Amino acid sequence: MTETREAFDIAKVRFDGAGLIAAVACDADTGEVLMVAWMNREALEKTLREGVVTYWSRSRGELWTKGLTSGHTQEVTEIRIDCDLDCVLLRVRQRGGACHNGFRSCFYRRIEGGSLVTDREKVFDDESVYKRP
Amino acid sequence: MTETREAFDIAKVRFDGAGLIAAVACDADTGEVLMVAWMNREALEKTLREGVVTYWSRSRGELWTKGLTSGHTQEVTEIRIDCDLDCVLLRVRQRGGACHNGFRSCFYRRIEGGSLVTDREKVFDDESVYKRP
Repeated sequence: MTETREAFDIAKVRFDGAGLIAAVACDADTGEVLMVAWMNREALEKTLREGVVTYWSRSRGELWTKGLTSGHTQEVTEIRIDCDLDCVLLRVRQRGGACHNGFRSCFYRRIEGGSLVTDREKVFDDESVYKRP
Repeated sequence: MTETREAFDIAKVRFDGAGLIAAVACDADTGEVLMVAWMNREALEKTLREGVVTYWSRSRGELWTKGLTSGHTQEVTEIRIDCDLDCVLLRVRQRGGACHNGFRSCFYRRIEGGSLVTDREKVFDDESVYKRP
């Protein structure tokens, strides 16, 4: 197909009342959804500039370059944005696992009837990586 | 692998201050991310019960069963939830396209340098489907 181009103006990204947009990270090769987190304008600019993913941590109230603690960084291969300019889709090369519970993806459980079913294996030992007591 | 089960209690889902969680819809067959929208508890319960996706429209302030206007419904094949219980991942059979601009996925543009590059083809005529003036 013929690609069409328009100017990208980050000022037009529709950050919400808290200054955030949702960011979905998926695996560069398989497309598997790994995690969903948040970005403010600074996090998006930093991610675009550096090519490794930085989110905004809502719980800590600070920029959060994924993998600084765990080594499980996300190298960006592509950034897409949705029709409404209020959500980004990151294709990433994920080192280790995206999930702080030790799984490749945060979505390691399906909802089935009245149950949560864990149907994925851990890919790293979260207790040692995050040095929990 | 051995699956493990725990009880799913919708009261433990961590809806935000506005009563919402993010919901990512991906293609049941390919895993392609189609769209990101929002659910309140009622939308999630309805989706779990009926097997077709209902979101909460933040702009209209009402339940939004995807496809009621366009016919482009999303039949659920699986619902997953993330580690923090604040985001769901829907695998869906998408009729037509998810995007109101006529594309299969809302993420039809990549950000590249200072440009937005449309690198997907429309799959339906949004002007006629949504009967815009």
